[in-house]
Amino acid sequence: MLRTFTCGELTSADINKEVTLCGWVQRTRDKGTLLWIDLRDRYGITQLFFDETSAPEITKKARSLSREFVIQIKGLVIERESKNKNIATGDIEIKVSDIKILNESKTPPFTIEDETDGGDELRMKYRYLDLRRNAVRKNLELRHRLAIETRNYLDKLKFLEVETPVLIKSTPEGARDFVVPSRMNQGQFYALPQSPQTFKQLLMVSGFDRYYQIVKCFRDEDLRADRQPEFTQIDCEMSFVEQEDILQTFEGMVKHLFKTVKGIDIPALPRMSYADAMKYYGNDKPDTRFEMKFVDLNSIVKGKEFKVFNDAEAVIGICAKGAAEYTRKQLDELTDFVKRPQIGATGLVYARVNADGSIKSSVDKFYSEEELKKWAAAFNAQAGDLILILAGPTEKTQKALSELRLEMGTRLGLRDKNKFSCLWVIDFPLLEWNEGDPNLLASLAGRWHAKHHPFTSPKLEDFELLNTDPGAVRANAYDIVVNGVEIGGGSIRIHDRTLQAKMFEVLGFSKEDAQKQFGFLMDAFEFGAPPHGGIALGFDRLCSLFGGADSIRDFIAFPKNNSGKDMMIESPSEISEEQLKELGIKLSQ
Amino acid sequence: MLRTFTCGELTSADINKEVTLCGWVQRTRDKGTLLWIDLRDRYGITQLFFDETSAPEITKKARSLSREFVIQIKGLVIERESKNKNIATGDIEIKVSDIKILNESKTPPFTIEDETDGGDELRMKYRYLDLRRNAVRKNLELRHRLAIETRNYLDKLKFLEVETPVLIKSTPEGARDFVVPSRMNQGQFYALPQSPQTFKQLLMVSGFDRYYQIVKCFRDEDLRADRQPEFTQIDCEMSFVEQEDILQTFEGMVKHLFKTVKGIDIPALPRMSYADAMKYYGNDKPDTRFEMKFVDLNSIVKGKEFKVFNDAEAVIGICAKGAAEYTRKQLDELTDFVKRPQIGATGLVYARVNADGSIKSSVDKFYSEEELKKWAAAFNAQAGDLILILAGPTEKTQKALSELRLEMGTRLGLRDKNKFSCLWVIDFPLLEWNEGDPNLLASLAGRWHAKHHPFTSPKLEDFELLNTDPGAVRANAYDIVVNGVEIGGGSIRIHDRTLQAKMFEVLGFSKEDAQKQFGFLMDAFEFGAPPHGGIALGFDRLCSLFGGADSIRDFIAFPKNNSGKDMMIESPSEISEEQLKELGIKLSQ
Repeated sequence: MLRTFTCGELTSADINKEVTLCGWVQRTRDKGTLLWIDLRDRYGITQLFFDETSAPEITKKARSLSREFVIQIKGLVIERESKNKNIATGDIEIKVSDIKILNESKTPPFTIEDETDGGDELRMKYRYLDLRRNAVRKNLELRHRLAIETRNYLDKLKFLEVETPVLIKSTPEGARDFVVPSRMNQGQFYALPQSPQTFKQLLMVSGFDRYYQIVKCFRDEDLRADRQPEFTQIDCEMSFVEQEDILQTFEGMVKHLFKTVKGIDIPALPRMSYADAMKYYGNDKPDTRFEMKFVDLNSIVKGKEFKVFNDAEAVIGICAKGAAEYTRKQLDELTDFVKRPQIGATGLVYARVNADGSIKSSVDKFYSEEELKKWAAAFNAQAGDLILILAGPTEKTQKALSELRLEMGTRLGLRDKNKFSCLWVIDFPLLEWNEGDPNLLASLAGRWHAKHHPFTSPKLEDFELLNTDPGAVRANAYDIVVNGVEIGGGSIRIHDRTLQAKMFEVLGFSKEDAQKQFGFLMDAFEFGAPPHGGIALGFDRLCSLFGGADSIRDFIAFPKNNSGKDMMIESPSEISEEQLKELGIKLSQ
Repeated sequence: MLRTFTCGELTSADINKEVTLCGWVQRTRDKGTLLWIDLRDRYGITQLFFDETSAPEITKKARSLSREFVIQIKGLVIERESKNKNIATGDIEIKVSDIKILNESKTPPFTIEDETDGGDELRMKYRYLDLRRNAVRKNLELRHRLAIETRNYLDKLKFLEVETPVLIKSTPEGARDFVVPSRMNQGQFYALPQSPQTFKQLLMVSGFDRYYQIVKCFRDEDLRADRQPEFTQIDCEMSFVEQEDILQTFEGMVKHLFKTVKGIDIPALPRMSYADAMKYYGNDKPDTRFEMKFVDLNSIVKGKEFKVFNDAEAVIGICAKGAAEYTRKQLDELTDFVKRPQIGATGLVYARVNADGSIKSSVDKFYSEEELKKWAAAFNAQAGDLILILAGPTEKTQKALSELRLEMGTRLGLRDKNKFSCLWVIDFPLLEWNEGDPNLLASLAGRWHAKHHPFTSPKLEDFELLNTDPGAVRANAYDIVVNGVEIGGGSIRIHDRTLQAKMFEVLGFSKEDAQKQFGFLMDAFEFGAPPHGGIALGFDRLCSLFGGADSIRDFIAFPKNNSGKDMMIESPSEISEEQLKELGIKLSQ
């Protein structure tokens, strides 16, 4: 090794040792005849000391070092005069006797500090320098730790990690596939997996009993801030289980991760039906760090002269505790917030409960004080509270009020990133109507689409509805939600050929297409498929949640930008005519 | 859970317990009024017992079950009359009180037994049934265990597992890339990584210090029996190290794996130079389970009237201990073996050392007994040994003799799959001349090609030869070889922009091409790149080696065949016009 110690391990117990260290020059403090350099590696920082009076040559050489030079030094561990309690090596420094420059460095395009001056684009282009910053490296160390603890937990429960293939078959009934032209089978394509779903089910048919994999998946979507074309899943499946067994097993896993990685004891996870999540939070992934549940006002506010409420399918509101003193300006901001196109409410009605118990609303001319008191009672609003009400078509209004609720939660400081509130959302609908989702092939519009995926088992008691009211069928499907983020979801699967065929029929597959795309799975169900179910957790999101960040990007070593580009390696890129020709493809233009 | 115990855990300690088990019907033994069924799951087999006299109904139901039906049974654990010492549950059986059929099964296309009657093609098509066989499942359990122990070892040494991207950039200077058309950036392509090489080097530039990943890699090659288009690597990199440090670290890993997974203590790994490996074994991955080293006969056999030897660049041989009694027929077989086109020798000369010390050779008319005794002395051949000699151009003859040596090793029972002989081969050449390798793009023929990869550091002392005799430059590169299989290889990397640029020049890159393809890496070297090196181990091969098998295929859950096809899911396959259009590509015909 080029070193005898790392930059993070020397303490006063090592005083008087001759040591060799390697690392990067973090910063230099030059005080006339005395000079100090902070030497950095992944493990920490060690202070190097130079005295021009006693060692002029080596001090001169030290002065020639610039930021981010890679050096090897030899020296003696000595006690520091002014100790630094903030770092592990703060009691000592190295009196350097020899410096070897292992590599020089140009001045980095941004500072390698916790708070950098580099903009997003620059940091993406020089990602290898951005990764040098403590803040980013710690995210990836956290990711490493989460992966280890995930494996520890699952290994103990006898789950086997099995690698499933990356070059599979295109089945574009879900999101768009990335495809790979085959050179050996021209005109044919592999696809990259959106998840190992069918393979893990086949492993259950094979009797593997308990499977897991921390695995890359791929989805060719138009990207949003927290989506990446390639992402990582903790993918799991179990045989001979019912929904309750899976909830217990993976609730245990989440608890284990919080305990071992963050030292937090998470209480038993509450269960909430999808219907209740929509009714009380307007959201299938409610942020339950704070209450502020929706209250349905239809029975209270209708029949007066306020046409907006009278005409609305839904009149629903929330009560923001202690926000009665919001100024006109703040209320206008909230109105603007809900009227933004991506939220789409037409207006916002408010009612303040003043300190004296009187109520002041934006619709005073339609509602008497007495009627407003009924509103306050419905919300259990106290003096100092602010009631915010939206009206309109149910689904749209729920969605808008959900956004407003989250906004108020943020404004009132109720969404502490160091507080964690987990729950299961259960009883999801099996299907949803695809009006024309831009993330699906256009040819799939105007059909039922599987809310989870086509392999999810409907609830037995809803089975007959498949023929009469498919949208009302509930699934044996569940999501795990933490702080308003869906970190995972799963279901009990279909393990019967006839039911699986029926499901494809409901989804608008012809018999031939179903057989062509998923025949192997339906065939497998005829050879003794056990009852089974599973779950997949979004690993990138889990990491960002544990790291207290909003974006997954800084928890991925080499992420892509919103156009799916890697700005560092400049990918995707053109390929040669020779390559295209060998693959038997041409560009359209 | 649908069961209270698995089929592998009940013992005499559980007698009189009421239990519920789930599993597959392995076989039925019907002895008139008494009936036994073996119930199978991943964990083992439990015997079910039925007595028609006391329980006619349930026995009748049991008789209706066919092979591979999935059932749930309830019953009482009782002591077996005739115990089976070969299985963990052999002391007990279950007196069944209730059977529930969870799923029926058609008759499988082959028997689900350790020795199956299914051919390769059938087993690939019904891979999910093949995976039910103990033999195959145990391979994947071994793989799981190897992955865990690999992580355990590396975690302890502070290696961080970091995921590198799968959608990267095509750099077709190595083997052919699989490419992925970008929908969002039409006319451009991602490539799937042949290895995370450049990314792991960038992680070293980032100061990650110690990296590993068990990672899928991709190579669009014409496939041989033990190659797959997607394969798995244990990929590692370390900073501030010299070659010796890497050899020590990963020798430790291999020892750890042998110890923890197979209970075998492996002695310190010998080191052999590439030059010696070629000289003594004609092979850069010598099988050192047996000696049978090459002996150079040039100085002994020339100058007589045997033209074949006189004209040959190389005359080399091996001594097969105890094979002197080989019959004429056996010797003819060996001659045919070396004359096969894929080996390509023109003939085989032999000399037997008889029990009485006399020597009988196939070239008696050219060589006297006295001369033949010199041969025997050169091989240190004893009575009963058989000397086998090939002659011809050096490289070709070494290769042919290597094959003959392995063949003789096999015939003489010297290649026991349960014996392991590991070594390091070091000092590889940096470059090799590409005459027109079918696994490379045609446009790369007639150039130097990097033997390891273009990022491998040449030995400092050979540096000047880069300009004068590139083929003679040795690299800081090393392979780890076990039983004649290269299970991994690596090198100390270039960490200097100028040297890296020089390397690309030698490999025939224009400055522009080098910058376009690898500019990001050369740029990174200018910002304080530390000295670093690493290794990658072929995980599939490691598994097959530990499993005592020749092919990697049965250590991969869902392998592809020699045409790169997955016969089970029928992939690759055609994709729709709609998909092609969205991707901006067309088929050539």
